[in-house]
This record gives sequence, structure tokens and C-alpha cells, in this order.
Amino acid sequence: MWSLDQVALHNKPTDCWVIIKNNVYDVTEFLQEHPGGSRIILKYAGRDATTAYEPIHPPDALEKNLPSSKHLGPLSSSAAQSVAHDQHNRKKTKDELRVEQALLQRPPLNRIMSLSDMEDVARKVLSHKAEAYYSSAADDHITVTENARAFSRFFFHPRVMRPVAKCDASTTILGFKASIPVFASGAALAKLGHPLGEANISRGAKTTGIIQMVSSNASMSYEEIIRAVPPSQPLFFQLYKHANDAEAEKRVREVERLGYKAIFLTVDAVVPGNREKDVKSPWVVEDLERGYPKVYVEGAEEEGDVWGTAGALIAHDDRDMTWEKTVPWLRRLTKLPIAIKGIQCVEDAVLAAEAGVDAILLSNHGGRQLEYSLPPIEVLYRLRKQRPDVFDKLEVYIDGGVKRGTDVLKALCLGARAVGLGRPFLYAQSAYGEAGVVKIVQILEREIISGMRGLGAASIKDLKPEMVERVDWEPLSRAKL
Amino acid sequence: MWSLDQVALHNKPTDCWVIIKNNVYDVTEFLQEHPGGSRIILKYAGRDATTAYEPIHPPDALEKNLPSSKHLGPLSSSAAQSVAHDQHNRKKTKDELRVEQALLQRPPLNRIMSLSDMEDVARKVLSHKAEAYYSSAADDHITVTENARAFSRFFFHPRVMRPVAKCDASTTILGFKASIPVFASGAALAKLGHPLGEANISRGAKTTGIIQMVSSNASMSYEEIIRAVPPSQPLFFQLYKHANDAEAEKRVREVERLGYKAIFLTVDAVVPGNREKDVKSPWVVEDLERGYPKVYVEGAEEEGDVWGTAGALIAHDDRDMTWEKTVPWLRRLTKLPIAIKGIQCVEDAVLAAEAGVDAILLSNHGGRQLEYSLPPIEVLYRLRKQRPDVFDKLEVYIDGGVKRGTDVLKALCLGARAVGLGRPFLYAQSAYGEAGVVKIVQILEREIISGMRGLGAASIKDLKPEMVERVDWEPLSRAKL
Amino acid sequence: MWSLDQVALHNKPTDCWVIIKNNVYDVTEFLQEHPGGSRIILKYAGRDATTAYEPIHPPDALEKNLPSSKHLGPLSSSAAQSVAHDQHNRKKTKDELRVEQALLQRPPLNRIMSLSDMEDVARKVLSHKAEAYYSSAADDHITVTENARAFSRFFFHPRVMRPVAKCDASTTILGFKASIPVFASGAALAKLGHPLGEANISRGAKTTGIIQMVSSNASMSYEEIIRAVPPSQPLFFQLYKHANDAEAEKRVREVERLGYKAIFLTVDAVVPGNREKDVKSPWVVEDLERGYPKVYVEGAEEEGDVWGTAGALIAHDDRDMTWEKTVPWLRRLTKLPIAIKGIQCVEDAVLAAEAGVDAILLSNHGGRQLEYSLPPIEVLYRLRKQRPDVFDKLEVYIDGGVKRGTDVLKALCLGARAVGLGRPFLYAQSAYGEAGVVKIVQILEREIISGMRGLGAASIKDLKPEMVERVDWEPLSRAKL
Amino acid sequence: MWSLDQVALHNKPTDCWVIIKNNVYDVTEFLQEHPGGSRIILKYAGRDATTAYEPIHPPDALEKNLPSSKHLGPLSSSAAQSVAHDQHNRKKTKDELRVEQALLQRPPLNRIMSLSDMEDVARKVLSHKAEAYYSSAADDHITVTENARAFSRFFFHPRVMRPVAKCDASTTILGFKASIPVFASGAALAKLGHPLGEANISRGAKTTGIIQMVSSNASMSYEEIIRAVPPSQPLFFQLYKHANDAEAEKRVREVERLGYKAIFLTVDAVVPGNREKDVKSPWVVEDLERGYPKVYVEGAEEEGDVWGTAGALIAHDDRDMTWEKTVPWLRRLTKLPIAIKGIQCVEDAVLAAEAGVDAILLSNHGGRQLEYSLPPIEVLYRLRKQRPDVFDKLEVYIDGGVKRGTDVLKALCLGARAVGLGRPFLYAQSAYGEAGVVKIVQILEREIISGMRGLGAASIKDLKPEMVERVDWEPLSRAKL
Repeated sequence: MWSLDQVALHNKPTDCWVIIKNNVYDVTEFLQEHPGGSRIILKYAGRDATTAYEPIHPPDALEKNLPSSKHLGPLSSSAAQSVAHDQHNRKKTKDELRVEQALLQRPPLNRIMSLSDMEDVARKVLSHKAEAYYSSAADDHITVTENARAFSRFFFHPRVMRPVAKCDASTTILGFKASIPVFASGAALAKLGHPLGEANISRGAKTTGIIQMVSSNASMSYEEIIRAVPPSQPLFFQLYKHANDAEAEKRVREVERLGYKAIFLTVDAVVPGNREKDVKSPWVVEDLERGYPKVYVEGAEEEGDVWGTAGALIAHDDRDMTWEKTVPWLRRLTKLPIAIKGIQCVEDAVLAAEAGVDAILLSNHGGRQLEYSLPPIEVLYRLRKQRPDVFDKLEVYIDGGVKRGTDVLKALCLGARAVGLGRPFLYAQSAYGEAGVVKIVQILEREIISGMRGLGAASIKDLKPEMVERVDWEPLSRAKL
Repeated sequence: MWSLDQVALHNKPTDCWVIIKNNVYDVTEFLQEHPGGSRIILKYAGRDATTAYEPIHPPDALEKNLPSSKHLGPLSSSAAQSVAHDQHNRKKTKDELRVEQALLQRPPLNRIMSLSDMEDVARKVLSHKAEAYYSSAADDHITVTENARAFSRFFFHPRVMRPVAKCDASTTILGFKASIPVFASGAALAKLGHPLGEANISRGAKTTGIIQMVSSNASMSYEEIIRAVPPSQPLFFQLYKHANDAEAEKRVREVERLGYKAIFLTVDAVVPGNREKDVKSPWVVEDLERGYPKVYVEGAEEEGDVWGTAGALIAHDDRDMTWEKTVPWLRRLTKLPIAIKGIQCVEDAVLAAEAGVDAILLSNHGGRQLEYSLPPIEVLYRLRKQRPDVFDKLEVYIDGGVKRGTDVLKALCLGARAVGLGRPFLYAQSAYGEAGVVKIVQILEREIISGMRGLGAASIKDLKPEMVERVDWEPLSRAKL
Repeated sequence: MWSLDQVALHNKPTDCWVIIKNNVYDVTEFLQEHPGGSRIILKYAGRDATTAYEPIHPPDALEKNLPSSKHLGPLSSSAAQSVAHDQHNRKKTKDELRVEQALLQRPPLNRIMSLSDMEDVARKVLSHKAEAYYSSAADDHITVTENARAFSRFFFHPRVMRPVAKCDASTTILGFKASIPVFASGAALAKLGHPLGEANISRGAKTTGIIQMVSSNASMSYEEIIRAVPPSQPLFFQLYKHANDAEAEKRVREVERLGYKAIFLTVDAVVPGNREKDVKSPWVVEDLERGYPKVYVEGAEEEGDVWGTAGALIAHDDRDMTWEKTVPWLRRLTKLPIAIKGIQCVEDAVLAAEAGVDAILLSNHGGRQLEYSLPPIEVLYRLRKQRPDVFDKLEVYIDGGVKRGTDVLKALCLGARAVGLGRPFLYAQSAYGEAGVVKIVQILEREIISGMRGLGAASIKDLKPEMVERVDWEPLSRAKL
Repeated sequence: MWSLDQVALHNKPTDCWVIIKNNVYDVTEFLQEHPGGSRIILKYAGRDATTAYEPIHPPDALEKNLPSSKHLGPLSSSAAQSVAHDQHNRKKTKDELRVEQALLQRPPLNRIMSLSDMEDVARKVLSHKAEAYYSSAADDHITVTENARAFSRFFFHPRVMRPVAKCDASTTILGFKASIPVFASGAALAKLGHPLGEANISRGAKTTGIIQMVSSNASMSYEEIIRAVPPSQPLFFQLYKHANDAEAEKRVREVERLGYKAIFLTVDAVVPGNREKDVKSPWVVEDLERGYPKVYVEGAEEEGDVWGTAGALIAHDDRDMTWEKTVPWLRRLTKLPIAIKGIQCVEDAVLAAEAGVDAILLSNHGGRQLEYSLPPIEVLYRLRKQRPDVFDKLEVYIDGGVKRGTDVLKALCLGARAVGLGRPFLYAQSAYGEAGVVKIVQILEREIISGMRGLGAASIKDLKPEMVERVDWEPLSRAKL
């Protein structure tokens, strides 16, 4: 039972304790291992770090990463009260006050007509930090924008005089039933946007009959997430492979044991992307707080972090994966279906087929990694034209830039089996929790069914390559840089 | 003879009366059949519903849809006075006040130089609801905008040194004379924009010598419209086929009896498009009335309608039409020429020719149905290049995005026999009634004749495919998203 | 010797006198023949019309068009004083006051670095009417803008390591020497912009060694213009052929006698273009004067003119010219070189060569006639690719959209012998009179010489087709819609 | 020892003395030779000219260009004090005050995340004159913008499952080691932006392991620059060849003696480009000082300079270089490697290879010379496709428009050995001196390494042509006109 004064003595790099949820931890030795760097921890040395810690770490993070000898035990009751009191009386930042106001002005859910409407609400009610983490992308945000713009180049050849009164948009993904050909793509740190985190998506997926892919970097534990839904609800796991094979194996065995139904090995994010908006977000918040114009005293600020949140999450990941080594390793480890997430060109799609995996997800990580990676729908189009045989060997999915039912239908016409969405689910759960997630699936279902009828397609198998034409002009696009 | 108090007792879903034009109707059983849903009726349960009813229902709607036993008879004279008094003293909404002001500032008709000028006036003097219904289109309004932009890719190869002092723009459509190769395409609910409704267009068409296609969803009865012009004036009928063949047959027989000259079977709108602007328009009006900023109490609003006005209009239409079944059915029913409205690709144009219809209208329903349906002028261009033989088998028309005489001429060079305009006629009659309709035809005639002379064409038959070139760059366009 | 009261009695359509420069004219019978319509004259019936008359009529217009019996003689001296007094005390319009202010803020001429700078000044110091007439173009101003944008698609392959210390940009046009491969293309109504009118251009051309083409519709007499420069200075004549061959012949014989050196027969303006900005300009001025917002009383304004200034100028022109008839007619009439102005496609360039004319000017009349006529530089490019032989048979020029030396060089690389500019000369003389004209030629000369050196070309003959590439992307353009 | 009164007597074109750094010079005879014209000198006739002189002349300029007989000796001590006092009490201009404020608001260096961030700071802290000189480009700034936009047309085909934990971006340029495939391209007048001038770049290059190319037109002497770094640090020399071979030889021998390691012969700037922004900058400053609106008295300003700073710098350069004459001349003169800077088309790249030079730099001089010269990355792309053999014969570099690591990687994939940057180095040293230079190299290194890993390339040789695709649509670009 520790007092605040006792903890406060351990406030330096060589002797660093922190308080998290009324427990005291010695993180001195851990400082160097922390994927997010030591600096952020030292900011809270000798003090309570709960508010900063919670939204970006799953609850089992301390247990998994800190030896039990460093768990020093609980605060005294008066210390805990004091921490709670401080937290309660803390002056709100301008950004927090803005968010409070935005929540009051949030429109009723029935006014949300599109994924864009949903995103608009979310961007207003998110903290600046969360909004920056979710929306940020590589360099100048060109790839993330081109991902969406690319869909606008594909026009339809709709067929008329075909019976569409009955219209069925359901399909299967790796053998699991999906009410529409859409899944929630892996996306980290849902708690940044909503206190109930990734489980909002899992429950919404359950309600609407679609499948969620859970990220290795979820802000909830893999167990918490899968326990949030009944065992009948399939969940896929997005694996960020640890550089240490033993660590990686532990993670695979854990999720297989928990009941996850497939492994999506992530290959498009072995190093962090250059997400300037994310890295800059603390400065923006700080400047807002201080007011403008500001006069800087040169050199007063220490050297900053250049990789941001994303860099921290994958600091220990494997940067030396190969087709020859990594896929067989994973195949030996598990009987679960294996998909490769992050194929970005035709050549690698072919290699994946040769490596015998069950599926590939054409993805450039939502434009968050390598700027000027081709938009996934363009890669899909090239794959369809150059190597149509690949579609017979494995299931092909895409993600990135999808916002409308017509986007989904274009991908399906070209041979995709399903389409993943990442940010839209983060935004939806941020804006309205589980209800938001349900809402956007309903919107997509309405748009997909309506689009299929407009195309003269009564079921998914009626969607054909000849129903889309890649036009040779530059159509308008809803995507803005 | 009913008093208001008597009517007011019947104000619930299980017992619902409404007053329309001083008559009382029992609509309890009809609630479930109402294409626009029961909710909108229940808003007026036990009360006068005339203002909401009138602009979107033809006067024979009650007669056609409500058994005479539900026609309960007139209000008492004092009740009728009371209704009129209430209506007269009703506080005007902000939108109504705005419209009043806009009408005062309407420029004199002789200052209207182009269809754009006309649209500008109309958009100002229309109620928000009407403006939203007329201008709304699918999803993000990309198709409606691309329809217009597409014309900008076609440039002319004008010929000089050809005699054009005499220049004749007249033609025939299905054998009926037209002063210029332009017709008024079917468009619903003209009364939303002007109290005299569709007859404004009919009379203006008569005056200027063009042909009008009347929509199944007109806000006047088919009889009212055709009676507004002399029998010599040809009118075409745009058929939305009822799912029930008998109902559909009744409609065809009615219009044939009334003297309509051709049937345009609509195949591009078997389900409602996703017209968010239309669906959202009541909220906009409501928010404007309440003022901003507004604070919402979550859940206070009930679940909304997502299909809007357009959805209601076609709720009972046939979604299982086929080439094999529907065309022969219609052919058996009538001797009138049959055109298919809504062909959106070359393949279906060929099927239509094989089905032996007299004409096709290349149309994506003004961009109001399936987003990313190819612009009609692009479909026409492909048809001309891939299947020029089709033009010998039937007449080909296009509509969508036409605003200038040069647009018409581009279509005619490529083989279209005539070009339809929808929204421009709605806007013209909304802005200046019949005179507005006459004005835009005069403008088009002037532009077409002037354009023909500029091209070196003295008559319609001088317009040739080699006079247009589809350019390989992205020209400026007057169309804005 | 007339008094104002006497003249004032003749103020109706059936008896209409007007005063012009202190002389009285009976225009009753002329009203129906006036190319600009009777309405504009009737506005001044019984009154002084000098201010409206002068800037758009050459001084010999009355003599040429009104029988001498209608020249009723001079005002009395007191009447003339009264007219002058009224004119002097007339309250200035808001537009006139704006122009006065703009003239004061005109930058010194040495700050004009480019033709754009010059245009900026001119647009500020021009009356609204003049600015509208000069800048207006067909329909939505797309062609006029595309004319300029088209140049931006042509990039250079500059050659290095070539001697360019000595660099000569001079050439000949129809055998006449030009200091640079540029001429002043025919453009009407220079007096609208500057009281000294077309002679500003003639004198500036003389000073700088270039050639001017004088329009049939000049606001000075053909004699006044040619007398403004020494006989050694060549002038070309832009012929708008009168519908009446005898009238046309009279005009040709006059200019040949006066010493004009070539005839450019205009074939791209047989009917007036749809120049809405020009037609609308009186309303804009009027509304500005009255102030906003304005309330219109419907019908208070009479039917307007829809062809504007341009329509009036060519009302009597020949709309039935043909290759078979018109070229031989002209050839019989004169020994001067004949050029056809207004070729807009390859086919007609070939016909012109076959007709044996000496030159063609690829032009769409500055985008003022048929909207979507291909940009002249694009026609030139097609001509070079499809029929390079035509360049051996006659001289080829282009005009439209030229603003920079690089534009000129692109045209020359593709085979043009010279490039015409119209509006830039009107703007230059409007802004600074003759000095403005000299300035823009100097600017062009500097830009052309500098560009030739950058290309590695020491003389005009070094400019080759392989030095330009039409790129396949959409480059930025200085042209804005 | 001169007094100010004595100097002041010599204040006319026929007798002109000036004071520079407390020394008096007789420049009467030099007036006509001054590359920047006599006018700018005469502005300071009889007065102190130090402030205007210093930032654009290297300290040895007087020695090299003015005979020692014209060096009249120092000011008296009281005169020097008086000059210093005047300078100290001089009222600051509005532009100087703006710059002072901007320097205070400069963000700390660790907030600079990209070359764009750096440019933003520099543009704020530069004097208007310096900003105009650095940023100005030919005509309408289209080429400079297209240089940057061109990169956006090249997308990547990233490869996954390749070991990239170890990643090496180092290479050699003409045999000299470079930490990344980037060099500082020659750029003049660094002192305009920062008092320590070009040495900021040299020292920053040393620190980060890259190579600098020093311009003939540096604002420091070639000796000063090379003495700023240890002999081990290689420097290249950008030669502007004097028209007089003997003068040119003197310059080559000087830099060889000083230890420069290669000669880059500049062939893309034999005449000055038309840089209007640069030429106009004095007027902008002047107008700002006087305030608006201003009324001009016509003719009050004398004829201006139309070539600006750039024109002055190259007034005496050789405009008659040829492959036959100039390359052999240079080869005879020096054993240093020879590169040709300013190749702008495939044909000349081939000629360069045939001339046996060691390297070519594809460059259009940063868009400052001939407007519409093809962007260098486009020339590189054509060279790769049309003449891949050239890459085996010499080293190929490009410069122009590079701002991101991905730009560098695209050029390297296409076969470039290294990429030069000009303006970014000027901006970096202007904003933060040497530290700014170090910063942008660090940023580029981070972006290059990160991009290589994203591409699946562990070393420079893994970058292949098939990793980039020139797309057929118009991608978004960070470049704005």
C-alpha cells in the first residue's frame, strides 16, 4: 500500500515508478523496451499515468510485458482518493471542451444516411489525438485519397429487364457466412474513439451478420473481444508477426485457442509509415491550449518522436519475413486458414497463390504506409486482366477507400470475394458505439442491394467483369485531398 | 356534413380520418397501402391534409385508390371556413418567406438568355422541398454531373463555305413532327414547382411545336394534361409498369383511350435511387425553422424514411420485367409505338432492337438511380462505334445533362434522332409557368439553328458522325458537382 | 440650322430624327435597315445620339448608308452649345466614375511585363460595355478558354549546345516582312476601348515592324486607318462579305484602291455567336446604376436583343458562300493574295488548298462563334500529322488564345508561318493607346527570342515539329474559365 | 582616408564613387561592364552601397573585377562611424519588420517534419527580394510546378516478404561516396537568405555525408566555400562558362586548384529566363512601403530592368557552346570528371554520351529558364524507354521538383544514380542555417530508407524499373501553381 509521496520519489530514468489504475509499477528496466519509447513514460515518472495509458493498451498488456516482480502493489486508499480527486478536478483542455460541445450537437442516428455522414460526426466528436491517429496517412495523404478516387474511374454497364424483386447479397468468406460481401478490416486502438472499444465492432458485426478481423494492436485483449460475442460469431485475427518467432508463435497459439477462425498475416507494415498528422497532433493540441500567436524560444523543445503512435505499435515486428520461410512456419503452427494482408502488385499475388495460402487481401494499409502504392482497386483490375487464373486459386479481397455500396460492387464485379473497411468502422463506433456500427452495415446493405438491382443482378454471382468499364477520362470524385 | 370536432376524434392508426379539399376521408385501411408510408398520413390524422396532399397527388388519386365507401362527404360550411381561416392565418415558415422574397426579385423573362439562367431563377423561387426533389440525384450526385460533363468531351469539326442562310431544325419523332429535335422527357410532380403543374409544359410544347412525354407520376391526372392541349398536339406516355399486370393494363388502356401517342416503358427505375438530398430536405427545413445551433436529445426522433418522395412514387412497380415477358405483353395490349426508356449499355440496346421495339431512350434517369451508370452520350458514342446497325432498326434518343443547343447537336451527329430534357422543363415552369417553358424552347431553337449554321449544316440530315471528335483531354465543363 | 425643339418633334418610329455631331439626320426609313435594330435608335429619337453612335461607327458610316437627302443639315449654334452643355453637365454613371478611378491607378507602362499584365490593366480601365464586348465569347466561354488551355498540352524538347548568341525571329507573311512571326488579327470596334481606335494598332505595328489585319467592322474608316501609317507599311484587310455581291465588290475595290495588301475572307462568322456577356452588359450597367437589391415589376421590360453588338455588325453578311462560287468570285475581283480566315478542321484546310488560295488562318473566331469548335493549335496539330503536304501548298496561320512567346513558338514548330493575336491588341490600345501596342510587341519579341535561344534555334527555320510533344497528361494552364 | 563629403562629390554617371565595407571605390568606368546594369550602382553613387552589395557578391568580386587602381582606400574613422550610425538608425522597412516578426514565430527545428514544413518557414523569414529570387521561375511558373507534379504520375509496385531489417541507402556519385543518393544542386546567392551563405550547405553536407555542387554564381568565393569544410569532403563545381575562353579557363583552373572534384557544365541557362516575380519584387516592396491605393503619375518611373537578378548573373556567359567545340575544350583543360547540366531531351542525352562526358544532369534549371521544357522525371522516363543503353555509358542524375523520399526513389528505379535538390537547400539554410541543411538531409534519409523498406528493397541496387508504373490518370499532387 503506497502513498503518493513514496511513489513520487521514483521519478527519474534510473528509478522510475508509475501508477496505473491505483496500482504501482516499477518500469525502470522496461523503459528501454517500451515500443513507444521511454520519453512518454518518463513524463509520468513518480505519478499517475492511467489517463494516458488506458486508451492505447489492452488490459493484459502489463501482465504480458512486465514481470510480476515489478508489480509493486496497490496505492493506499487515501492515495487512491487523492488521485481520483485530482483527476476529477483537473481543468479540462480546450480540446476536451470542444468534444463535449460536439457530443451535444451530434444529430440523431436516424439522420445518418451515408458513411460520409457518419465520418463527419465522428471527426467532430473525436479528440484531436484520436482523429489524427485514425485519419492520418503517409506523407501528403495522396495514397489514401487516391484509394478512394480510384473507384470513381470505374463506371457501370447496368442491365435492364432482369428480375430483381428478390435480391440476395449474402456470400461466404473463407467458408463463413456473411450477410453482405463486406468485413471489418483490422484497425487498431478503437478505445481512442470510444470507451467500449473494439467490442463495439464485434457486437455490431454479430447483429448484422458480418465478420470482423481483429488487429494484433487492438486496445482490448483478444480474449475480451471474442468474449463479447457468442461463440457462433466468427472472428478473424490480423497478425503482426513479432520478430522473435517464439513470441509470434505464442500469439498465434493464443488466438487459435481463443477461437479465432483465420489468420491474416500483415505484410504491408513492417516499418512504420510517415504519418505526419499523427506525429504532429500533440503539438497542435499544445498550441491550441497556449493560444496564438506564439513566440518560440529556439531550442527550448527537445527532440521529438518521428514515428508517432503507429511506430510504437510495430516496433518489435518482423522485418525479415519471406515467402520461403514465413508462410511455411505459420502453416506448421496452425490449421486455421491463412490470408496474406497487404499484397500490392500482381507479381506478389501470384507468389501468394504459389505459396498456397487461402486468401489475399489487396491493401496498401489504407494509404498509411508507402505513399504512391497503387490503389487496391487498381491492383485488382490489373490482376483480373493479367492473371485471371489467380482468382481460381484463392479468395481475393481488397480494402482501402471504400465508402459506398457501388464501391463494393465494382470490386465484386472484378472478382473480389469481399471488401474490407477499416476507418469507417472506427468512425462509426466513435460516433455512436455499437449502434453506429450496426448503422453503417445497414447503410451498406441498403446501398449494395439497391445497386445490385440497378445493375440487374439478383445475387452475387450475377456480378460480372463486363459490368464495369474503367473509363478513360477523369470523373469527379467525392474524395478530396 | 362534418364538423372539425367530429373529424378530430379519428386521429389514430386504428381509426384515421383526414380532410382534403373540404371533404372527409376514412383512410384507416388505406394506411398500409399508401406508397409513401403511413407515417406521413398519420401526421395529419383527424385534421386537414390538403396542403401536403395537393402538390404530389393528381386530383383523381382519391377516386382511383380509395373505395367510394371511404369518401365520407363534405365538411360543414363553418368547418370549411375554419379550415380556410387557419390556412390563411398560418404563420409562414422561413422557407416560405424566402420564396416570397425571391419571387419579387425574379428578373423579367427577357433577361433569361440560357437554360442555366432559367435554372438559377427556379432554384431561388422553389420551396426547399421542391428544389430538393427536382435537383436530387443518386448518392453523391456524381452521375448527374458526369451526364453533363460528358458532353464537354465532344468537340466539333465545323465545316465552312456551305450555304446555311436557310436552316431547318425540324424533324419527326416516331412519325410525329417536332419543330426541333428535342422533347420534354417524363418528369414527375410539376405541381411542386408551380400550381398549374404539368399543363404548363403541355401548353408550352404546343406553342413551340415540340412533344411532351407525360410521366405516370404526374401530379395532374393524365386526362387533365391531355385536355389542356388541342387533340392535334401529340403527347407521349412514360409508363411505370405496376407489378400487377391487370393494374398496369388498366393504365395503358386509359392513356391509349385518352389519345396518348406512344408508350415509353421505364426500365431504369425499378427500385428507388438513393437520393439523400430529397430524403434530408424535411430536416433542413425543420432545422432552419428552429434555428442554429441546435442541441439534440438522443433518440428523440423516430426512425426516418430513407427512400424519400421518389421511393413512394414507385413502391408498387414491377421489379421482375424481362425482355421475353414484358415487351410482348405490352405489344399485345396496344397498337401504340413502344419505346424503352432507360437503356444504359450497348448490349441492352441490341436486345431492344431484337425485341422489336420502335425506339430506345438511352437514359440513366437523370443520374437519379444507379450512381456510376455511364452518361447517355457516352453510351450513344459506344453504340455508334460498336453497333451502328442498331440505328437502322429503331429510333434512338438520349436524355440527361442537356443544357445547350450544342449538346443536342452532338447527340444528333452521333445518330440520335432526338434529345429529351427533364429538369430544365420543371425548372422553367416553376420559374415562369407556361411562359418559361416557351422561353427555353425558343432558346434551344436559337442555339440549335445557330449551331447548325456554325457547323455548316442546313438541315438535320447534314449532321454527321465525322463532325464530332471525342477528345483525349479533359476540357472545362460548365457542370459543377 | 435646326433648334432642339424642332428636332424634338420627330421622336417616333414613323418620324425619327437624330442629332450626331451637331448634324441632324432623318433616319425614319433607315430604322428597318439598321443592322443593330431600330430599338437602339428609337431610344434617341428627337435627341442627340452622338455618345452612343461614335465608338461603334466609322465616320463614313452615315455617308455610306444614309442617302444625302436625309442629311438635314447642322444644328443652330445655340442648339449645339446646349447639346455640349448638357453633355458636359451630364451626371456621370457609376461605371464612368469607376473607369476614371481606374485610370488614375493604372501602373506605369514599364511595369507591364506580360500580355496578362496588360489585359489586367485594360479590363479595369474599360467601360463595362467595352470590356463585355471584347471579352465575351460563345455560350459558356469554354472554347475561348480551351483555345488558350490547348497550348499548355504542348511541351518542348529543348536542344542545348547550339549557337544562339545571334538569334533572328523575323519572317515574311505573304511575302511581306515581319519583325516577328506575329500579326494583329482583325478585331472590331477599337474605339470602344480608346478614342484613337484602330490607328493605335496600325501605328504600333509600324513602329515594331509587324503587320495588322484590319476588320471590315473597324470603328474607323478603312481610309482613316491606312492614312495613319506611311504607304510602306503593309496592312491586310479582313473581309466580311456582304450578302449582296455588288456591295461586297464595292468594299473589295475600295480597300484594294486604298492600298491594302491582302484579303482575308472571313468564313467562321456567317451568323452571330451567342455572346451572352455582351448581350447582358446593358442590364449589368443599368442594375449597377439603380442599386441592389432590386424588385422587378413583371413585364415592365420590353423584349430584348439577343445577338448583341456582334449580331448587328454582321447582319447583312453572306450566309451562302461556297468553295465553288465565292473563292473564284473573289479571285476574279482582285489580284491581291487571298487568305481564308476561319478554317476549323483538316478537311476544310485541304479544300482550301485545292481552291488555290494563298493562305489559311486556322481560327474559331476567338471562341466567339461556335462553342466546342476545336482549338486552332489542335487543328494545326492534326493538319501536321494527317496532311503535312498542305503546308507546302499555302501559308498556314493560327489565332486564338495566344498570350506568350512560347505559344507562338509551339505553333511555328508545328508548321504555322505566323500567329495572329486579336484581343491582346484591343486590350493594349485600350490601356495605353499606341504605346500599349508597341509594348506588347516588344514583350512578345523578347519572349520569342528568349524562347528560341532556350530551344537552341537561332532562326525561324530551326523550329521543327520534333521540338514539341503533345503530352498525355493534363498540365496546369494559366487559362481560367 | 576619405570623408563622406569627399565621396559625395562623385555622384554622377561620369564620376561615380561608392563605399563598400568602409572602403571607397571608383566605379565610373566599371558602370558599363556591370552585369546588373549601371542603374543599380548609380542609385548609390557618392554613398555607402554595402547593404545592397553584400548579399549578392562574393567578397573577392571587387578584387577580381575592379583594377586595383580603382580601390581608393578606406574611409576616415569618423566617416566609418557615421556610416555605421546611419545604418544603425535607419528606419526599418515594412518588409524588414515583417521578417523580424517572422523570425520570432519560427517553430523549433524539431517540429520540421518535411521539406514542405521547411519551405513554409523559409518563405516567411526571407526578405521579399530573397523569396522572390529563390522561388521565381519562368513565365507563369508552370514548368516549375509541372516538375513537381510529374512525380505524382509514377506509382509504385511495392514488393512484400523481402528482408529489409537491414537497409542501406548509400551510393557513389562519380566515384565519391554519398550517404544517400541525393546531392545539393548548384544554386546561387545563398547569402540573400542567410548571412553565412553557401557554407551553411557545405557544412551541412559534410555532417550528413552528401555532396554539394557549388554554383559559379555563389555569393561567397569558391575558396571561402571549400575552406569551410575539411579537404576530405568532396565538392563539385557548377560551371557557367564565360563567353571569353580565357576567362572561362581561369575559372576552371581556379576551382581545380582549390580542390573541387568535378565540373558540371551548365547548358540550360545560356540566356536569362523570364522570371517576372524576381523582376517585379522591387516594385512590390516599394508599393508596400508607400501604402495603397496608389495613384501613379504616368511616365514618372524610368524604364525598368526586365531580366532581374538572374539576368545579371549570366550576362557574360557563352551563348555559342557546341558539342564539337566546348566539351573537347573543357576536356583538354582539366582531368576532373565532366558532367553536362541541363539536358532536356533524349536526343541530347545521346549526344552527351557520344561526346564522352562522365555524367549528365537532366534538368530544366528548376523551371526557371524555358517554360514548357519537359519535367526531368519525364525525360528520364523517355530515356529509360527509348535508350536504356545510355545508362551504361554515363551516370544520369535529375533535379527539379524533388521534395520527398519517394520522388528520389522513383528516379532511382528508372535508372538515375542520384537526384539533386536546389531550392530546398536554399530554403533550409535560410530558415535555420547549417542546422536546417542537416535537418532536411535527415528527413530525406528517413523517407528514403522507409520507402525502400516499403518497396522491399534493402539496397539501392534493388530498385528496379518494374517497381514504378506511370499511371494513365491524373493523380492528386501536392504541387500547386
